[in-house]
Amino acid sequence: MLNVNPNYAKLPGGYLFPEIARRQAAFAAEGPAVPIIKMGIGDVTLPLAPAVISAMHKAVDEMGNIETFQGYPPYYGYDFLLEAIAQGDFKSRGIDIGTDEIFVSDGAKSDSANIGDIFDLNNKVAVCDPVYPVYVDTNAMAGRAGDYGEDDRWSNLIYMPCVESGGFVPDLPKETPDMIYLCFPNNPTGGVASKETLTRWVDYANKTGAVILFDAAYEAFITEPGIPRSIFEIPGAETCAIEFRSFSKTAGFTGTRCAYTVIPKALTRGGASLNEMWARRQSTKFNGVPYIIQRGAEACYTAEGRAQIQANIAYYLENARVIREGLAAAGLTVYGGVNAPYIWVKTPGGMPSWDFFDQILRKACVVTTPGAGFGPSGEGFLRLTAFNTATATTEAVARITAIL
Amino acid sequence: MLNVNPNYAKLPGGYLFPEIARRQAAFAAEGPAVPIIKMGIGDVTLPLAPAVISAMHKAVDEMGNIETFQGYPPYYGYDFLLEAIAQGDFKSRGIDIGTDEIFVSDGAKSDSANIGDIFDLNNKVAVCDPVYPVYVDTNAMAGRAGDYGEDDRWSNLIYMPCVESGGFVPDLPKETPDMIYLCFPNNPTGGVASKETLTRWVDYANKTGAVILFDAAYEAFITEPGIPRSIFEIPGAETCAIEFRSFSKTAGFTGTRCAYTVIPKALTRGGASLNEMWARRQSTKFNGVPYIIQRGAEACYTAEGRAQIQANIAYYLENARVIREGLAAAGLTVYGGVNAPYIWVKTPGGMPSWDFFDQILRKACVVTTPGAGFGPSGEGFLRLTAFNTATATTEAVARITAIL
Repeated sequence: MLNVNPNYAKLPGGYLFPEIARRQAAFAAEGPAVPIIKMGIGDVTLPLAPAVISAMHKAVDEMGNIETFQGYPPYYGYDFLLEAIAQGDFKSRGIDIGTDEIFVSDGAKSDSANIGDIFDLNNKVAVCDPVYPVYVDTNAMAGRAGDYGEDDRWSNLIYMPCVESGGFVPDLPKETPDMIYLCFPNNPTGGVASKETLTRWVDYANKTGAVILFDAAYEAFITEPGIPRSIFEIPGAETCAIEFRSFSKTAGFTGTRCAYTVIPKALTRGGASLNEMWARRQSTKFNGVPYIIQRGAEACYTAEGRAQIQANIAYYLENARVIREGLAAAGLTVYGGVNAPYIWVKTPGGMPSWDFFDQILRKACVVTTPGAGFGPSGEGFLRLTAFNTATATTEAVARITAIL
Repeated sequence: MLNVNPNYAKLPGGYLFPEIARRQAAFAAEGPAVPIIKMGIGDVTLPLAPAVISAMHKAVDEMGNIETFQGYPPYYGYDFLLEAIAQGDFKSRGIDIGTDEIFVSDGAKSDSANIGDIFDLNNKVAVCDPVYPVYVDTNAMAGRAGDYGEDDRWSNLIYMPCVESGGFVPDLPKETPDMIYLCFPNNPTGGVASKETLTRWVDYANKTGAVILFDAAYEAFITEPGIPRSIFEIPGAETCAIEFRSFSKTAGFTGTRCAYTVIPKALTRGGASLNEMWARRQSTKFNGVPYIIQRGAEACYTAEGRAQIQANIAYYLENARVIREGLAAAGLTVYGGVNAPYIWVKTPGGMPSWDFFDQILRKACVVTTPGAGFGPSGEGFLRLTAFNTATATTEAVARITAIL
């Protein structure tokens, strides 16, 4: 008799976004006075850049012609894209990353979820709190998280609180972890890590032998000088860090699916090269990203593509400013939104985040995301995103202001 | 200190296709008299069908327009594709599969590799011998295979020989497995399973509580009536089987990446729904297939798309006939190629398969795949594929005939 993976039964049933959808649908069914505005979801709304569209049309034509048709893609990405990434995201910024240290994939979610495959099941995992749920759930599925308790915590995870007093950056944990998930600019808080902060983590990982799993999916939103866009700007990161990057938020690829992961050749543990292990993992369990999509991603690195994408990011950052300044003017305490598409809003008077969510949904007809859904330390906050249209964003801020 | 997954170090280094590539490159460097023809690789050569190209152009345009732009795709596939699949591949053939039993993905390789996530690590795995290496390697990586021995076998796998005397269909194993990988039409032998054979396996799995992981990636090549195209044609399969399907060989999508997996709602083990577990796995570790690609896949089910795809399959099957009949006329014993794009050729006089491979490479300048690379029982055979052009295929058969 086949046995199922017993860890799946330990996962708590009520996932954050389905619960939000349920409350939203229930309210919509009651017939709200004005259309509901979604400020909760982290999905983009602007269309793909013309340079990307043009590159993909060309690639589609190539796939229809026997002379230019492309069969199985290389497991780790076409050279044209690997070279564009190595040059555009690293060498041009003085970071030495080779094309054989880059693995193109269908998403930073897939990669940050699948990376666990190459690690032992007994490693101790540290996550920020609040946190992107994928890091937690995938480790729970693999059996590294222990059991889920009534305190909404997994018994075997190390939680690193990211709180207001600490600028939403975690302290080094008391218990030594083996795998450390960090995401900066942060989802959900919009916080950033300075060069000093990341240096502290890199030094710590090199000293303890831990590996940092660094999610840099939002680096394109950094506006302030001096904030690292890659952990590989930090000396020593090449022996302790893996970085996840994505075209999803950078270039509006949420529905187009392309990302990449960087694993330096210098990163080894117990004599094993993590770069080689991931290469083996990907060549065995993945078959590459569509040619058409990789040509679209390549176009993001042309001068034309870069300018178009930059304009889209500026549009979202302007939305972020409108939210941040508008809600601050309305008397709320707000964080993030300067180097990130996320604004982290403190609930007034210590109100529970689901209560404030419900109040804004029902009185302002605006959907947000309650911070408690990202972990215990997210309680007392709401996450708003800058990805809606400028019109909807301005309207949402006005409506929230009106009910406060 | 982080520990790596210790199972990766157990994987044998020399993977089949890199070794073939090495020998081919070495020979090419010597300057062969005529161009080398590749009859070894399972990659398609015909361009995508015009209906698919047209649908993808339209989808690219939609991605460039704010009104029609698509963000995150549904985790399990767009309804338009799920409905096309349910109708086109199942309901139209009298098989009752609902859209909520279908999970669209980037490849049957990914799915057949990742499916192990939802099963306990202590399950006993049975594989055919010879076999598609992904089933073996992914279970080895997860720790289910034990250790790799000098006999080229993993200590903890159940090998089910598929040999000439048995029509390349395995007998029920003596030791009872929990997970049973079956692939029909078969890669690499080109063999098929009759309704009676599959019924025997379904009854066995239902009796023992095992789950059959059925790879039907080559069903589109079935030409003989009565051979099941889906395991769900067999009564009782809905309580013991998972099926993997792919657009790769059916519609030339090897470089376009789309596939799907069917998990019936009736399939449970230990009270857990495997459909729900896979849904949870996919929503947590995967983010769906690009909109553009799914629109391309949908076009495969239109009358126009079907006819174009069918013409391509007929082209490859004609290549298969040329190989099969040509090599038989040259005195070789050949199998497969009637309901599959693979021809399984017996080496003359019991010659080892790598020797026959080298002989054909060096004397005929044709690359094949040695059967030993697919498992111990593949020894004494070569795999040829029907995916090259008609011209190259005819030329390759003539060259091989000339050296025999």
